[in-house]
Amino acid sequence: MTNYDKFFSHAAGFMRESAIRQMGAVLAAAKDMVSFAPGYPAEDVFPWQAFGEIAKGLLGGADGSVLQYGPTRGYKPLREAVVELMRSRAIASSLERVVITTGSQQGLDLVGRVLLDPGDVALLELPSYTGAISAFRNVGASMVGIRQQADGIDLDHLDETVARLRREQRRVKFLYLVPNFQNPSGLLIGLEKRQRVVEWAERQDVLIVEDDPYGDLYFPDVSRVEETRPIAADDRHNRVIYLSSFSKTLAPGWRVAWISAPEPVAAKIELAKQAEDLCSGGFDQRVVYEAWRQGILAGHLPDLRAHYQRKRDAMSGALSRTLAGRVTWDPPRGGFFLWVRLPDGLNAAQLLPVARAHGVIYVVGSAFFVDGSGPEYMRLSFSAPPPDRIEAGVTRLAAAVSEMTSGVTSSVSR
Amino acid sequence: MTNYDKFFSHAAGFMRESAIRQMGAVLAAAKDMVSFAPGYPAEDVFPWQAFGEIAKGLLGGADGSVLQYGPTRGYKPLREAVVELMRSRAIASSLERVVITTGSQQGLDLVGRVLLDPGDVALLELPSYTGAISAFRNVGASMVGIRQQADGIDLDHLDETVARLRREQRRVKFLYLVPNFQNPSGLLIGLEKRQRVVEWAERQDVLIVEDDPYGDLYFPDVSRVEETRPIAADDRHNRVIYLSSFSKTLAPGWRVAWISAPEPVAAKIELAKQAEDLCSGGFDQRVVYEAWRQGILAGHLPDLRAHYQRKRDAMSGALSRTLAGRVTWDPPRGGFFLWVRLPDGLNAAQLLPVARAHGVIYVVGSAFFVDGSGPEYMRLSFSAPPPDRIEAGVTRLAAAVSEMTSGVTSSVSR
Repeated sequence: MTNYDKFFSHAAGFMRESAIRQMGAVLAAAKDMVSFAPGYPAEDVFPWQAFGEIAKGLLGGADGSVLQYGPTRGYKPLREAVVELMRSRAIASSLERVVITTGSQQGLDLVGRVLLDPGDVALLELPSYTGAISAFRNVGASMVGIRQQADGIDLDHLDETVARLRREQRRVKFLYLVPNFQNPSGLLIGLEKRQRVVEWAERQDVLIVEDDPYGDLYFPDVSRVEETRPIAADDRHNRVIYLSSFSKTLAPGWRVAWISAPEPVAAKIELAKQAEDLCSGGFDQRVVYEAWRQGILAGHLPDLRAHYQRKRDAMSGALSRTLAGRVTWDPPRGGFFLWVRLPDGLNAAQLLPVARAHGVIYVVGSAFFVDGSGPEYMRLSFSAPPPDRIEAGVTRLAAAVSEMTSGVTSSVSR
Repeated sequence: MTNYDKFFSHAAGFMRESAIRQMGAVLAAAKDMVSFAPGYPAEDVFPWQAFGEIAKGLLGGADGSVLQYGPTRGYKPLREAVVELMRSRAIASSLERVVITTGSQQGLDLVGRVLLDPGDVALLELPSYTGAISAFRNVGASMVGIRQQADGIDLDHLDETVARLRREQRRVKFLYLVPNFQNPSGLLIGLEKRQRVVEWAERQDVLIVEDDPYGDLYFPDVSRVEETRPIAADDRHNRVIYLSSFSKTLAPGWRVAWISAPEPVAAKIELAKQAEDLCSGGFDQRVVYEAWRQGILAGHLPDLRAHYQRKRDAMSGALSRTLAGRVTWDPPRGGFFLWVRLPDGLNAAQLLPVARAHGVIYVVGSAFFVDGSGPEYMRLSFSAPPPDRIEAGVTRLAAAVSEMTSGVTSSVSR
């Protein structure tokens, strides 16, 4: 028998399966399970017909390069489109700053590879996105958590933490933020705080990695587009690396996202990508480009906002009816997630098998905390299931909570 | 001005642009350039019509998962197809060993990440594929070259090298090989030598990374399918990590390739891929699966073999007519490449600007040697251009060689 352990790299030793992907495996094995686990966009609102027509045009064979290897930085017209798209978000980017990536996950991975050596510090919110945690962990980074406040990251805690890290001679490379409808908390960082974050980065001489997949998906009943203004829009000192994606607004199956970074950083990212997958899918990039060029993306966004707003209402309403007073949450103003705090003494990891037995799953909140905290939180995604399934799932979840809390009570009284 | 240098990782410092991709940039900027540089498959023989029909079926919207996030290991029916496809190559794989990757380049990168720590040794042939060199370099590996013989890698040199490295306390992780019609040399490793390589790996307790994108593209006039039998087919001790791809047999724009690895290695590769791009393109994987299921791939291969054999003839014939006696090459028995040795005193890097001025480009051979040798070689890809362009390109190349050699002569005589 060959012993493989001695062949593995140090990094292979600390790679971990994501809690979100684990739930995907549970789901694949289950019947009639309501899944609030992965943040999947709703398939029924993908613009199928438009995609079909675009594909037909592209596969006519008139342009052979559609299925050929392409430039590592991506299909140039798409990169130009991305520059224009960012301009509509008030970001002054340029062709030289843009790299198309194979989903935003690759963007996070590339950022980690070109900026982080083992032991280098990446600052992340408490909680933060698991995909970023995985990418930074896999390059051996040391991740340090920063508390959130109602209007976003706690700047005092940020200053204290950086001061402490520097006393310890640690190298702080960047702060990773999801400013719009954060995965998992749904939090929208306030406009004034965004300004202060940019100033903070310049003052402290660190970079900001701004991950913005949900900015387009604000809920018109409680949010305005102005409130989603990216941090990169006010990046006067070229300190922001901005990531966004078409996965939530068109479809994730195309695996098309982008990074806009200061030119020297973009150049390194290109080199890293060249050895990582040569180029992103050529066909996928053309489809996305055509969907943008033909106005399908822009025309689609209002429908998507309304769609996910209705689903938020379905989940929020069902939670109010079945779990009010037992769990708490801040109604999200956009995005895919509802971040629920369980009653004292109830642990989301302990609740999960009970919920699963009742036919509903979610992601435990602790997966999103780099300091191991957050056992009382769970992330519920309302994006994929239809409203009636959302209601059924919340009802099951309420039954699971009841079972757990009565169990707690009875074991206390016994 | 922000100084970015201090933010970059150590790895970012040694990342390099591939010589092949550099030529891509040259090509994009030029008019009427004949490119023998990138090993692009011929676009005109992609099965466009079949792809169009498959896409139409997939985008009907009946199966929403076509454009959804998918499992990290890949679309299960495609993984099953890959197991069957490998069975036809005499490899006993299994679902648990297979991971679909975003092109073989990602496979090489993932192999590097899970097996190599900085300073670990990867053994590569002299010459070897630049994409592998880039991937292993980017994780900080130390790459050591092994000479080739007419029937493939020099086993005596392999033994001597490993003995020396072990005396130096170096950790030798694997030997990387492209056994079938190697990129760049075109070399086909002999069957007996393949057996001996497997035995060698067991005796020396190292792994083999077998990269096989060209095995299906043997030239029937001089090769038989039996001669392409993968090393993995005789892997009795589970030491072979096998990579192959649909990029050369269907189209690279789909970015679909695979790894078959011992289960513990496949499990690590899955974890690494999860943080690297979550999953490969869902639509791409379905298209490739359908092309396999409907027999399009199998029906297409004889045409591809004939197509590339004709192009080899075109290049080989043109070289014989214009450069016989001045350059030498072994006629390739499959694949995309003709590996040309220049006359003594002529350097491929010095010839390149002259060739470019004459309207033809190639990749300098030294890019493929991890020990910096090989200045007298150049790699000519005959896969993409049509036969008349191949002839025009070789004529230009001959003119460039003439200019250089007469220049050399005159500067000597001056």
